[in-house]
Amino acid sequence: MPISPRFADRVRDLTGSPIREILSSATRPGMVSFAGGLPAPETFPSFAGVRLPAPTLQYGPTEGEAALREKVAAYLAGLGLRCPKERVLILAGSQQGIDFAAKLFAQKGTPVAVPSPAYLAALQVFRFFGARFQPFNEADPSFGRPRPSLLYCNPTFQNPTGKCWSLEERRRVAAACEASGVVLFEDDPYREIAFGPCERRPVCSFLKKGSWIYQGSFSKTLCPGLRIGFLASSEDLALHLNRLKQSADLHTNRVGQHLVLSQWGHAAWEKRRVRLVDFYRRRRDEFSSALRETFGRIAAWEEPQGGLFYWLRLRRPVDTRVFFQEALGRKVAFMPGEYFFPEARPKKGFFRLNYSHARRSDARRGLKILAKLMGS
Amino acid sequence: MPISPRFADRVRDLTGSPIREILSSATRPGMVSFAGGLPAPETFPSFAGVRLPAPTLQYGPTEGEAALREKVAAYLAGLGLRCPKERVLILAGSQQGIDFAAKLFAQKGTPVAVPSPAYLAALQVFRFFGARFQPFNEADPSFGRPRPSLLYCNPTFQNPTGKCWSLEERRRVAAACEASGVVLFEDDPYREIAFGPCERRPVCSFLKKGSWIYQGSFSKTLCPGLRIGFLASSEDLALHLNRLKQSADLHTNRVGQHLVLSQWGHAAWEKRRVRLVDFYRRRRDEFSSALRETFGRIAAWEEPQGGLFYWLRLRRPVDTRVFFQEALGRKVAFMPGEYFFPEARPKKGFFRLNYSHARRSDARRGLKILAKLMGS
Repeated sequence: MPISPRFADRVRDLTGSPIREILSSATRPGMVSFAGGLPAPETFPSFAGVRLPAPTLQYGPTEGEAALREKVAAYLAGLGLRCPKERVLILAGSQQGIDFAAKLFAQKGTPVAVPSPAYLAALQVFRFFGARFQPFNEADPSFGRPRPSLLYCNPTFQNPTGKCWSLEERRRVAAACEASGVVLFEDDPYREIAFGPCERRPVCSFLKKGSWIYQGSFSKTLCPGLRIGFLASSEDLALHLNRLKQSADLHTNRVGQHLVLSQWGHAAWEKRRVRLVDFYRRRRDEFSSALRETFGRIAAWEEPQGGLFYWLRLRRPVDTRVFFQEALGRKVAFMPGEYFFPEARPKKGFFRLNYSHARRSDARRGLKILAKLMGS
Repeated sequence: MPISPRFADRVRDLTGSPIREILSSATRPGMVSFAGGLPAPETFPSFAGVRLPAPTLQYGPTEGEAALREKVAAYLAGLGLRCPKERVLILAGSQQGIDFAAKLFAQKGTPVAVPSPAYLAALQVFRFFGARFQPFNEADPSFGRPRPSLLYCNPTFQNPTGKCWSLEERRRVAAACEASGVVLFEDDPYREIAFGPCERRPVCSFLKKGSWIYQGSFSKTLCPGLRIGFLASSEDLALHLNRLKQSADLHTNRVGQHLVLSQWGHAAWEKRRVRLVDFYRRRRDEFSSALRETFGRIAAWEEPQGGLFYWLRLRRPVDTRVFFQEALGRKVAFMPGEYFFPEARPKKGFFRLNYSHARRSDARRGLKILAKLMGS
C-alpha cells in the first residue's frame, strides 16, 4: 500500500476552499458570470506594434524594472504617499503581495485584523498561514487583545462591499495602527475606478511612523492578463519583501512590465482612463436599473461609487451557498457572501455581484434568473 | 518610540541571505558575471510580429492555458513521464514550484532530503519554511531518521555540480522514495542543454506508485524574461498545487504563455534548439580552455556534459566567500560554493562559475583576475 505524503499542518486549511471551483465554473462558455472581478474586455488596450527589446527577454532585477519603479514612486507621491523608488517592488499581480505579507507576519495563531466582510482571497492566504482573524471596523478603529500583527484592508471601494472610507475614518485608522504598532496593509486595486467624489487618499499616507505596505494593480486600469501589480512599503519591511520576491519567482515577467511602461503615463493613458471610467459608470447604471427591477423587493444594497461590485443583502437571511449549484445549472454564477466573512460562523443572506463584465442584456437575463431563485 | 513589527518566526532565516545582493551586484555595468545562471542573449528568439489576442489580456485559468498544458503533457510523455494534462500547472518560472513544494511540505523541523551541494535558492526557500536538511547521495540512496517528507533534486546536470545521474542511480533513487514514502521533487531546468549522451529520463518516470512533482522551465530553452515554467505532479498533489497557485498570483501571465505557444513545437523550434546547444557547447569549450590556462594548477573540476555551470574545487580549501568582495571590486562576480551546502558547516574551497553568459574575451579576462586572487 502506498504511503501517503506528509503535508505541512497548514495544508489542512487548503482543502476546504470552493473559490477556485466557483471561478473556474464561472468562465464556462455561455455562463453569465457575476462571480469574479473580471474587467470588461472592451476596455483593454491594444498592444499592436509593440516590440520587445532583447533585455526584456533576459533575467531581470528582483525588484522590477527601474523605469517602472520610478513611475510608481512618482504616481504614489501624487496620491500623497511619499516612498522612494528603492522601496517599490513590482509584483506578479497584487495577489502576490498578500502572499508576501502573510509569509512575513502570519504563523499559527497570529492575530490579523480584517474588516468583516473582507476580500476572500486575502482571508484564504492569511488563514493558510495560520492567522486568526479579528474583525475590524473602520468606524470604531480599535484593536482587540492580543494585539494583531497586521491590519489588512481595502479602504477605497472595498471588496466586497464597495465602501469607501471617509477622511475621518482614514485618519483614525492610521492613528490606531500607529498607537498600537499594528502594521497597516492597504490593498488598493480599485481606486482608479471612481464614479463620484470620494476621499481616496491612501490611509498609509496618514502614518507619521509605523510600518506599512501599500499595493496597487494594473489589472483594472490596463488589463489583468499581464499579471502586473506593485507594492511600496516602510523602510523596515522593504528588504524583507524583496527577498520574499526573489524566493517566490525571482522577478516579475519583464514583457508585462515593458507593456505597462509602453502605455502608462503616455498621452493616450489619461484618455483611456477617462473612457474606462465612463464605460464602467454606464455599465453600473444599467446594472442598477436591472437590479431594481429584479431584486428590488427581495434585497437591499447601496450603489457603489467605484470598484467592480455590488454587495446585496437578501431580506430573508438564507445561506446563499445553497443557491450556487442551481444558479450554475441555469448558467448564472455569483459569489456567495458567506465566504467573505472572517468569522467561523459567517453572516447569511449576503452575496456579491460583479457588474463590470456581463453585457447589458446578459446581465438582465442573469439577474432575473438569480432573483427568481433567491426570491422563491 | 515606534513599536517594531512582529514578524513570523520564519523571517529570522530571511535576513541572512547574501544571494540577492550577489546577483544584483553581478549585473552592474562592466561586470564580468560568472555568478548567476544567465542564458546568452545571443540565443534568444525574436518575437517580432507576434500579436496578442484579446483573451491573453483577460484573467485566465489558474492552471494555465489549456493549449500549453496539453503541449507540456505531450512533451513529458515523450520523455517517458506519463501525466494527464489536467495535472500540469503553468508556473511563473520554476522557482515558483519550489515555493509551492515548501508550502505543501515544510514546516518547523520538517526533514527534507537534498544533495550536498544543492541549488541554493531551493535551500533558501525550504529553510525559510523551517526545513531541516538531510544530505542525500544518489550513489547510496537511503534516507535517514526521521524519514524526510520530501527529496528535492535536479538529477540532470545538477546545479551547481553539473552531475547527471546514471540510469542505475535514477532507478535506485525512485525505488528508495517509493519504499520510504518520500515525495520525489525533481527540478529539471537544464535537461535540454545536453552536449553528449547522458541518461536523462526523469527519475519520476521510474516511480510505479508514490507521490511526485516534476518541473521544467522555458528560461533556458527560450528566454527567462517571460518567467514561464511548468510542473506536473502525482494525483494526490495536483489539486493542492492548483490551490497554492491561485493563492500565490491567481495565474501565470498569459502574454508569456502566448509567446511560448507561438514558438514551442513549431518548425523553427527544433532548429533553434540545436543551434542553442551548439552555441553553448562552443562556449563551454572556450571556457574550458581558458579555465585550464588560469585555474589548471590551483583547482580541479569535471567538464560539464550539460547545463550552465562549472563547479570548481580549489586545492587549498579556503572559504571562497572571502574573495567575493575583492573580485567584485575588480569587476568579476562568481558564486561562492559555501552557500550551496545544506549543512550548518559548509565545505570550503568550492565555487560555481556560469560559463554561458560572458563572451570569450571577457570570460578569459575574468578568469585570470579570479585565478590570481584565489591562487595568491
